[in-house]
Amino acid sequence: MAENPIRFGIMGCAKRARKLASAIDLAPNSTLYAIASGSLEKAQLFATENELPKTIKIYGSYQEFLDDPSIDVVYMPLPSSLHLQWAVLAAQKKHHLLLEKPPALDVVELDEILEACESNGVQFMDGSMWLHHPRTAKMKELLSDPKLIGQLEFIHSTSTMSPPPEFFKDDIRVKPDMDALGALGDLGWYCIGSVLWAKNYRLPNLVTALPGVIKNSAGIILQFSASLHYDEPDLFKTVAIIHCSFLSHSSMDLKMIGSSGSIHLMDFIIPFQENSASFSITLLAKFVDLHIGWNVKPEKVVVANELPQEALMVQELARLVEDIGKSVSCPDRKWPQISRKTQLVLDAVKKSIDLGCKPVYL
Amino acid sequence: MAENPIRFGIMGCAKRARKLASAIDLAPNSTLYAIASGSLEKAQLFATENELPKTIKIYGSYQEFLDDPSIDVVYMPLPSSLHLQWAVLAAQKKHHLLLEKPPALDVVELDEILEACESNGVQFMDGSMWLHHPRTAKMKELLSDPKLIGQLEFIHSTSTMSPPPEFFKDDIRVKPDMDALGALGDLGWYCIGSVLWAKNYRLPNLVTALPGVIKNSAGIILQFSASLHYDEPDLFKTVAIIHCSFLSHSSMDLKMIGSSGSIHLMDFIIPFQENSASFSITLLAKFVDLHIGWNVKPEKVVVANELPQEALMVQELARLVEDIGKSVSCPDRKWPQISRKTQLVLDAVKKSIDLGCKPVYL
Repeated sequence: MAENPIRFGIMGCAKRARKLASAIDLAPNSTLYAIASGSLEKAQLFATENELPKTIKIYGSYQEFLDDPSIDVVYMPLPSSLHLQWAVLAAQKKHHLLLEKPPALDVVELDEILEACESNGVQFMDGSMWLHHPRTAKMKELLSDPKLIGQLEFIHSTSTMSPPPEFFKDDIRVKPDMDALGALGDLGWYCIGSVLWAKNYRLPNLVTALPGVIKNSAGIILQFSASLHYDEPDLFKTVAIIHCSFLSHSSMDLKMIGSSGSIHLMDFIIPFQENSASFSITLLAKFVDLHIGWNVKPEKVVVANELPQEALMVQELARLVEDIGKSVSCPDRKWPQISRKTQLVLDAVKKSIDLGCKPVYL
Repeated sequence: MAENPIRFGIMGCAKRARKLASAIDLAPNSTLYAIASGSLEKAQLFATENELPKTIKIYGSYQEFLDDPSIDVVYMPLPSSLHLQWAVLAAQKKHHLLLEKPPALDVVELDEILEACESNGVQFMDGSMWLHHPRTAKMKELLSDPKLIGQLEFIHSTSTMSPPPEFFKDDIRVKPDMDALGALGDLGWYCIGSVLWAKNYRLPNLVTALPGVIKNSAGIILQFSASLHYDEPDLFKTVAIIHCSFLSHSSMDLKMIGSSGSIHLMDFIIPFQENSASFSITLLAKFVDLHIGWNVKPEKVVVANELPQEALMVQELARLVEDIGKSVSCPDRKWPQISRKTQLVLDAVKKSIDLGCKPVYL
């Protein structure tokens, strides 16, 4: 533990906050200082159930929680419909922000949040944990080497899950007044993010939702696919396909095919296990004579990680916050920019779905 | 070797005929009886280069070759623009037909060929070798078990390759008067076929080409993607995405996600090696508590094969032909039906591409 760890407060005691409570505990430069819920009972229950230390401050009011100047970073796993109101207030109260995805319902809302962060000098980051895994950095290193994968020509990214039946009645991700973006905001955030990540955060030229969108009776998206299309200066184009569903078996595949190699993994959002993760790479594959086999097979690359990816995310955010606190640096604009571009593409997919799968130019 | 092996004749001494010459040699119930080319020199060169036995008949004229009543099966690796003329004649001369894919330029042409086969009582089969691999049968067995994968909701199939520069000048697959369907007819045949195979040869309701189609200066398709959409009776829909390219690194991924499991392989058309092939299966995957990992990992299923898939294809065709010869059975309609459905979907993709990625209903 660092001498003066960055103090995190968790705003919203949803089940998904448990993972971050544990991550804050694991990260060497952060500590869980406070938790808040709309009711004191719920917050206390969260503390008991998760065996949080007695020293942690427990708030039964978000307003009072945000008034506590000792909180450095607010982690906000609230439903996305509540983000605008509370994230802006958190920033105004000079708290740095770790906002669960999707950070906002659209880019107009997100811009208000980012503007509040910018004008109050606080760091913004969304909860895309997989970006902080060393495997992700290793893949980027290989993708960046022009001698390996070459120009990316096809990306395929899925995020699907098959939740229990009660999910479709009770979960915030299927309710219009909570996470109104449904599978698009939840699973789609990762898939869109992975395409942007692979393309060094260049925006696609054209986004098209594909036939096969499924909504629930309240109009919430439960399943969708989309193509993201990049024009390139020469003959090449990059085509990316994303597919997200609350109605399919678990998958989180990411495949990237370049001109001379490809990378594939089946657990890009949540690695199969906590302490190491892998991907497969195939380089310069050709068929052997008579086309009866291949000259190479996919090669497995294993990347160990000392801390789980969520703890690495917390550690990175705490590091940035510490530097800002010491006036060593300003907030890192990389993270809000990543979120904003992801939200822009998400908005375009939403628009295309609303238009009955018409193409949307960015 | 069987006592009276089925006699194959190869019509067209292209490089790709070498694999089948070898397969005919390997299959226990077939023998290579004759080869033909448009010129005697070319046919003789093919025989010498491939060290074919001296006993093999060599024809410098397709007409004379087809007039030889001793040929049981004609394997025809000619460019697809020549199929209609020669395949119909071969059927009229009572030769059974193994036609390289794509069997025709469109379903109108294919219907003429199939009608010629039907009325002359000869067996038709296209050269989709992967359908004859025991791995394919094993996957189908697992897909058919309602307790395993469940209802198929997403299929993703790619076939990409990165041929040498001379391919783009000389290969028949980039010439309008040869294989005018380009990547759609060549690579697309497999991807469309894999979706139909997975869906037990039900036709999709809707086919849509996706933005990002690349053509050469003669208008031949070098790269395309398409979505194939299936309406289902209940909430579910099946979405299939295919992506084919002559401009990307080699890939032949097939991913099938159902309601309770998924199957994935990266070499579905040509297995990495000749004597065994594998796929991975994931069943009932869930995240463990706190979503820090998965309860299961993809499990590798290895399927050994005594003969390479192309020899198994020849063996199956020879078996059917033998039974027809003994009047034990009529031609098996399964194979022409598979080809026809594949061609129908291929035509729909072509139409959607021609219409600027408009949806095409089947």
